[in-house]
Amino acid sequence: MRLKLDFNNMMEFRVGREKGISIKAIENMEDTARAIDKKLKEDRAGGRLQFMNLPDHEEVVNEIISLANEKAFTYENFLVIGIGGSTWGSIALHTALSHPYYNLLPKEKRGGRPRFFVIDNCDPDETAGLIDILDPEKTLINVVSKSGATPEPMANFMKYYDIMKNSIGEDYAEHFIITTDEGDGVLRKVAKEEGIRCLDIPKSVSGRFSVFSPVGLFPAAVLRIDIKELLAGARYMDEICNQSDVWQNPAYMFAVLEYLSITEKKYNISVLMPYSRKLRHIINWYIQLWAESLGKRKSRNNETINVGSTPLKAVGAADQHSLLQLFNEGPFDKIITFIKIEHYENEVEIPGLFSGYNELEYFSGHSLEELMKTEQVATQLALTNYNRPNKTIILPELNAFTMGELMYFYEIVTTVTGELFNVNAFDQPGVEEGKIFTYTLMGRKGFESRKKKIIDKLIEEKSFIL
Amino acid sequence: MRLKLDFNNMMEFRVGREKGISIKAIENMEDTARAIDKKLKEDRAGGRLQFMNLPDHEEVVNEIISLANEKAFTYENFLVIGIGGSTWGSIALHTALSHPYYNLLPKEKRGGRPRFFVIDNCDPDETAGLIDILDPEKTLINVVSKSGATPEPMANFMKYYDIMKNSIGEDYAEHFIITTDEGDGVLRKVAKEEGIRCLDIPKSVSGRFSVFSPVGLFPAAVLRIDIKELLAGARYMDEICNQSDVWQNPAYMFAVLEYLSITEKKYNISVLMPYSRKLRHIINWYIQLWAESLGKRKSRNNETINVGSTPLKAVGAADQHSLLQLFNEGPFDKIITFIKIEHYENEVEIPGLFSGYNELEYFSGHSLEELMKTEQVATQLALTNYNRPNKTIILPELNAFTMGELMYFYEIVTTVTGELFNVNAFDQPGVEEGKIFTYTLMGRKGFESRKKKIIDKLIEEKSFIL
Repeated sequence: MRLKLDFNNMMEFRVGREKGISIKAIENMEDTARAIDKKLKEDRAGGRLQFMNLPDHEEVVNEIISLANEKAFTYENFLVIGIGGSTWGSIALHTALSHPYYNLLPKEKRGGRPRFFVIDNCDPDETAGLIDILDPEKTLINVVSKSGATPEPMANFMKYYDIMKNSIGEDYAEHFIITTDEGDGVLRKVAKEEGIRCLDIPKSVSGRFSVFSPVGLFPAAVLRIDIKELLAGARYMDEICNQSDVWQNPAYMFAVLEYLSITEKKYNISVLMPYSRKLRHIINWYIQLWAESLGKRKSRNNETINVGSTPLKAVGAADQHSLLQLFNEGPFDKIITFIKIEHYENEVEIPGLFSGYNELEYFSGHSLEELMKTEQVATQLALTNYNRPNKTIILPELNAFTMGELMYFYEIVTTVTGELFNVNAFDQPGVEEGKIFTYTLMGRKGFESRKKKIIDKLIEEKSFIL
Repeated sequence: MRLKLDFNNMMEFRVGREKGISIKAIENMEDTARAIDKKLKEDRAGGRLQFMNLPDHEEVVNEIISLANEKAFTYENFLVIGIGGSTWGSIALHTALSHPYYNLLPKEKRGGRPRFFVIDNCDPDETAGLIDILDPEKTLINVVSKSGATPEPMANFMKYYDIMKNSIGEDYAEHFIITTDEGDGVLRKVAKEEGIRCLDIPKSVSGRFSVFSPVGLFPAAVLRIDIKELLAGARYMDEICNQSDVWQNPAYMFAVLEYLSITEKKYNISVLMPYSRKLRHIINWYIQLWAESLGKRKSRNNETINVGSTPLKAVGAADQHSLLQLFNEGPFDKIITFIKIEHYENEVEIPGLFSGYNELEYFSGHSLEELMKTEQVATQLALTNYNRPNKTIILPELNAFTMGELMYFYEIVTTVTGELFNVNAFDQPGVEEGKIFTYTLMGRKGFESRKKKIIDKLIEEKSFIL
């Protein structure tokens, strides 16, 4: 069940000297990789990389499974309210591991579990639409926010708090689970006052690295995903990525290839192209991880560097009919990473029909699984033939164990790439500016005049409107 | 109900001389824009831009509405089988204009219309999942393929043809509508033999420009979208974009700004960021239009140019917590286009609660609509303050008329940008290579040995796997 990385098509001998990475260039990174390995092991031992230890927290897992079992069979609907790192993990796991039309299945085919909904925006049309279809009495709500202060989920929480209290009366607190920082934030205070059960996010784990904490695990457990298997996969990947030699460590190799692609080749776009619709939200989860961790103005030495690599999602085979033309023929500004599945859950035979029609008869004896795998190989061949560097993550199959591997792998890749760029991969200073503008415009106390001048200047009369 | 373009924040006076576009640079494009306008008008008069006339085909619209009314109330499920340009249009219209949880509404709240499903892939897990939940007897299937030879939809068509024939018996043909090229392609031949009703795609309209043909219109009509209003919006935009002066024509200005961003400023990424979840698939539709039309190796003069601009989707406000950090602080390699909604369908008041908590009490008296609009302004202000060029498409509201405007606007923008790059915006030569590899690997007659050598070379034993 081991995830593998095939990077042949990144190399000079496949895509040519000008476009490919040389063996020499990787060899030149060997010492750097070893130094990073040493530093990360020290950081981890010193308690500074808590997210790497999340898969070991057995008592947390048992608490989550017991709470999930207590709640999962009582409700028709399970709603997660959050945004960004608070929701992408559970969305990703559900999409990868549940039935593709889960919410439309009859309850018995869902193993008696509730339907699943997520509100990760403050779009009024979305929230209003959800209110139309959810019966409060039959709904369990998990509010997920590390800080307890992020405007979008807090606004939705307040809306739903009001709805639940008005519809259900005294027992409303039973319908909520709050997942928030283990410290004494506002959401925990509210939870205590209201008698709402809390799950803890360890202090030093930031949102986008929190999928293996209650943030990702509790919703997964409610939805009958085997979270013990998930964590076993993460631990297995942790072992694999314990090697300090870049030639032995797939995560280090992945990071080095991304780094060289950006710095040496100026490929500023990194495409993620899974050949499975079920992985489309794992990619969205990874996009946040990658973009927010690495897109930084300052290095750790406080130099202005404006680094980062832009992640782009493409879903095979569908996006062969959308983005592939650009990938094959457009500017040489991107690398592509495929995710290839060796065995799909289903095969789906294509019936032999319409013989005599050259465009249709050749399907006879083939399956959709074969077609899908062939499309992946064909796209990879075409890209390579166009001298477009590409690599492939190979998954034996899609299950909780391999998803644990894949997500942990991506976390290590992102952390190591952060070290290569010498940026802090765990903060997000560039998001603060917009938040302060929002607070000022919404009239939050203490923010009245902070950005007033800039707002006035930029909202001044505009002439360039057509 | 007019769509507007605000491009103040693209300009030097807002984001600085180094990062912004100068008035002079736009003035230098005035003659080019006029020349393109002249050429496009000649092309259109000469029948070479048929897609621009689709909104005028009244008799087609009447045929579609009548067929939709005949079919829509008889079935529980409506499935579209297609890929790329055959499906993005109907997905986009449905997502923008139907209830956000349409398939979960009871039938009477869907106006008696069927639930909506799309298969736009050959993913075996997806097709198997759909087979689990669709009762063939209650299902209407619209197969959409211009050529009738694209492997993914044809494989699904054959699978479903078999299922329907076996479950329903003689009347199975009633359950299919085929939308295909008006010429004598394989799918039309099959339809004639089987007695399946056909809708026509005009010969010179390519898939990604076909939303205003039966490709987009028939599914929309089945789903109770007012396609007459949609086309009225498209015609209104056609009038607005009739101006030859770039300073008077929002589509020409949009195209010129994109062109200057790429050629003068080397911004190779163009971000689309609508502040409405309902527009997320309009963006996917546009991504295909933009990427496949402009990502080209050769100019019309047969020079090798490898041009194109990479479209990237971000959905506000959610992706402020994912991609915004990179947009604000990462490399200066992108421009951002917001889509701003002036009036959402719903307001959704946030109740005044938890007074005394600074992080929560300021919501009192506000609505989700206000919060959403504030987030958009705040993000725009932050980006501008970080000297990141951005522009905004302003929509008065989301309805069939404004969606017609928006989609027609994007089609003109793409066509004009193609002229600016001097590429053929209507072909996709870079997709052929992969298709031929697929045919060869799947054993289609006539393709046995065409790519054999390349395949052997690239599938040879690999060493670089970890």
